[in-house]
Amino acid sequence: MMNNIKMLLEFDGTNYSGWLKQSDENIITVQSAVEKSLYNLLGKYTEVTGCSRTDAGVHGLNYVINFKTDSTIPPNSMYKALNPFLPEDIKAKSSEMVDGEFHAVYSAKKKTYRYYFCFGEIEKPLYKNRVWNAYKKMTVSQKQILELTNKAASELVGTYDFSAFKAAGGIAKTSVRTIYDAKVKSLGNNLFCLEICGDGFLYNMVRIIAGTLAYVAIGKIQPNDIKSIIESKDRKNAGITAPAHGLYLYKVYY
Amino acid sequence: MMNNIKMLLEFDGTNYSGWLKQSDENIITVQSAVEKSLYNLLGKYTEVTGCSRTDAGVHGLNYVINFKTDSTIPPNSMYKALNPFLPEDIKAKSSEMVDGEFHAVYSAKKKTYRYYFCFGEIEKPLYKNRVWNAYKKMTVSQKQILELTNKAASELVGTYDFSAFKAAGGIAKTSVRTIYDAKVKSLGNNLFCLEICGDGFLYNMVRIIAGTLAYVAIGKIQPNDIKSIIESKDRKNAGITAPAHGLYLYKVYY
Repeated sequence: MMNNIKMLLEFDGTNYSGWLKQSDENIITVQSAVEKSLYNLLGKYTEVTGCSRTDAGVHGLNYVINFKTDSTIPPNSMYKALNPFLPEDIKAKSSEMVDGEFHAVYSAKKKTYRYYFCFGEIEKPLYKNRVWNAYKKMTVSQKQILELTNKAASELVGTYDFSAFKAAGGIAKTSVRTIYDAKVKSLGNNLFCLEICGDGFLYNMVRIIAGTLAYVAIGKIQPNDIKSIIESKDRKNAGITAPAHGLYLYKVYY
Repeated sequence: MMNNIKMLLEFDGTNYSGWLKQSDENIITVQSAVEKSLYNLLGKYTEVTGCSRTDAGVHGLNYVINFKTDSTIPPNSMYKALNPFLPEDIKAKSSEMVDGEFHAVYSAKKKTYRYYFCFGEIEKPLYKNRVWNAYKKMTVSQKQILELTNKAASELVGTYDFSAFKAAGGIAKTSVRTIYDAKVKSLGNNLFCLEICGDGFLYNMVRIIAGTLAYVAIGKIQPNDIKSIIESKDRKNAGITAPAHGLYLYKVYY
């Protein structure tokens, strides 16, 4: 009998070419690493479905995968058994048996991403690969950054055609998405975290939103401009695409 | 005229063999990297004094250096001029002219270190090189870890012979040190930070204290045992030496 296993992963995406397996086997992706580890645990090839494509350098905090297996390892213990086979920058956090229909992508109802960025005169070396060292020359205080970016973030909440926040090359059929919540928290030490929840995100959408909020922080875009940027449906009007290494898939809701 | 410049550095110690320059020039240390960068800025060799030897992998948040120079670069701008010459894992945060007598080591009155550790079933890949993934099999809650480790930490406050918390190989004349403050904070997500302030620390002392607090968290040492461990002056009675990569020099008071 095949069990459908849902598993949560945490991974450091720094050394991976994103989640999705590539046809060139020399390209190491998180999926290829997990499938290789599963092969070594289960003794047979097992295809894994991941909840989201991620770009190279993007991290996972509670990244969801599912796979079908006839293994007799108890589903709730599968993650423990797998961990010794995983590389040290990928760890399994939990596992459980789910309905046979469950699919990490298609069953997802909401996703929350976090984006970490830092504004201040000096780049912080300890944030390398973890946090975007955004802009240095700030004309506003850290408190004002928090107010401005939150005002802008709140303008994103709702159901809109987010074409202006979409990179070329995406495969989605529609650019309409619903953002349920978008807030920026101050974590001290010039560090900020955007937490954004939506029913789905277009290609590079969170990174473009983060880059747009960074433009808001440096005064290149005003919070009141956000609605007209959305309405323009023109990528050129939004901010830059913030780098991948500040982005974390935080949670998927099913 | 020679100015005495005090400068604050932040560095990621992962790729360095500690602070102190070695006679073997193939060994890259933070000091050798900073002196090389200063040479490239100033056009002449300038010896740098660092506030503390650090082990390989230890990080600096507000690491203090001083050096004497006849450069005409304004002292308050020196750090900005140096940054383009520093490697990306070392950055200068500020600089100022100080009294000619100022010495980064001998003028120090107090130092504060931070030690980051994490207790939980799963090692967190994103903490690699930044946080000690300490013990996994916990019999107590995160809240109890906080209470227990704080009780133990408070027993360290005072003036004692800390021989029990000293690694062999130190060069200090006396093992008597004063700990002014030692507190553990919970940062959520199984993460804890010890912040400890003292007039000075023996070789590996903060790491042995962190390892001892980790033993307290797993019940191998009781908070009430700390005083008798100090009194024993016997390294064998304290906990293990926690790994270097959880340790951050946070602040030096002059």
